[in-house]
Amino acid sequence: MPRWESGSRERLADAALGLFASQGFERTTVAEIAAAAGLTERTFFRYYADKREVLFAGQDDFEALFLTGLAGSSATAPMDLVAAALENAAGFFPDEKRAWSRARQEIIAANPALAEREQHKMSALATTLTAALVDRGVEETTAALAAEAGVSVFRRTFAAWIAPGQTGSFDTLQREILAQLRALLAHDS
Amino acid sequence: MPRWESGSRERLADAALGLFASQGFERTTVAEIAAAAGLTERTFFRYYADKREVLFAGQDDFEALFLTGLAGSSATAPMDLVAAALENAAGFFPDEKRAWSRARQEIIAANPALAEREQHKMSALATTLTAALVDRGVEETTAALAAEAGVSVFRRTFAAWIAPGQTGSFDTLQREILAQLRALLAHDS
Repeated sequence: MPRWESGSRERLADAALGLFASQGFERTTVAEIAAAAGLTERTFFRYYADKREVLFAGQDDFEALFLTGLAGSSATAPMDLVAAALENAAGFFPDEKRAWSRARQEIIAANPALAEREQHKMSALATTLTAALVDRGVEETTAALAAEAGVSVFRRTFAAWIAPGQTGSFDTLQREILAQLRALLAHDS
Repeated sequence: MPRWESGSRERLADAALGLFASQGFERTTVAEIAAAAGLTERTFFRYYADKREVLFAGQDDFEALFLTGLAGSSATAPMDLVAAALENAAGFFPDEKRAWSRARQEIIAANPALAEREQHKMSALATTLTAALVDRGVEETTAALAAEAGVSVFRRTFAAWIAPGQTGSFDTLQREILAQLRALLAHDS
């Protein structure tokens, strides 16, 4: 059971992840997940609409963290607003969640339909951040470039954070990768 | 008929685009496209595997332009390699093609499955560019950041290039937008 939460919901999430990993996402049924968690199907459906939602639940909270971070910043430079969004979103990935996130990612990478949904989620995040920057008075192309740079940093951070042997915190890695992107674009030759 | 090419292939492409725009992509048949172009279905299938290919044909050439640009550059800085890739790919979008590209984009935007394919094409481009940079000795996270920045610049350029009333060349717009991204990331506050 993940340490960052507890209860039936997490027992179901852990059971699902274990079954998805051992026998594949497609071949796993809700009945099997519930049984593996020692719970009923009825209980499963109290928490999740379907088995896919086990992997994508909490996505509204995830996006909200970016937006709250941006809204709470008094910065005016677009990339500073994006940095504030990224910093706040790092709170979604405490170290205790790393093993779960890693296992989840392996399942998603193994299933094209899930990978597409994950990809779509990232595009939607860029669109949402662009709109939030435009609301703050940022010109549209600038807003889109800044938002996409932010999502790129986020994705690279996530990949680094779940890499085998990685012990750095999400927040620390993300600051490093944002600095890396800034350095990469700093020199016009 | 687009001025940058001529012949049956282009008559089919123009006829298809007209029908997709007037009656929708889903509702248009290959038979209708061939008839509107004054050609046979047999001729259609000599050029395109299906109606979707009318919108996505030439994508291998498109990706190859990025790679050729990158391969032909003697730069060592990752973003200079990406800039060389972008510059070469601008050749895929001469001014004469703007109206066609704009019409194509409207059809794609109106159809979620087509939009998803276009999105997937952009992700695949980022992956391809990342691999090309890694081949040139660029560290993996840096390569991914540079490639994703390049794809972001490309997408914003394309959006600006097809915007109503836009007269700037693809190449000029792309240089401006790359400069805009560099400026955006230049100041760490």
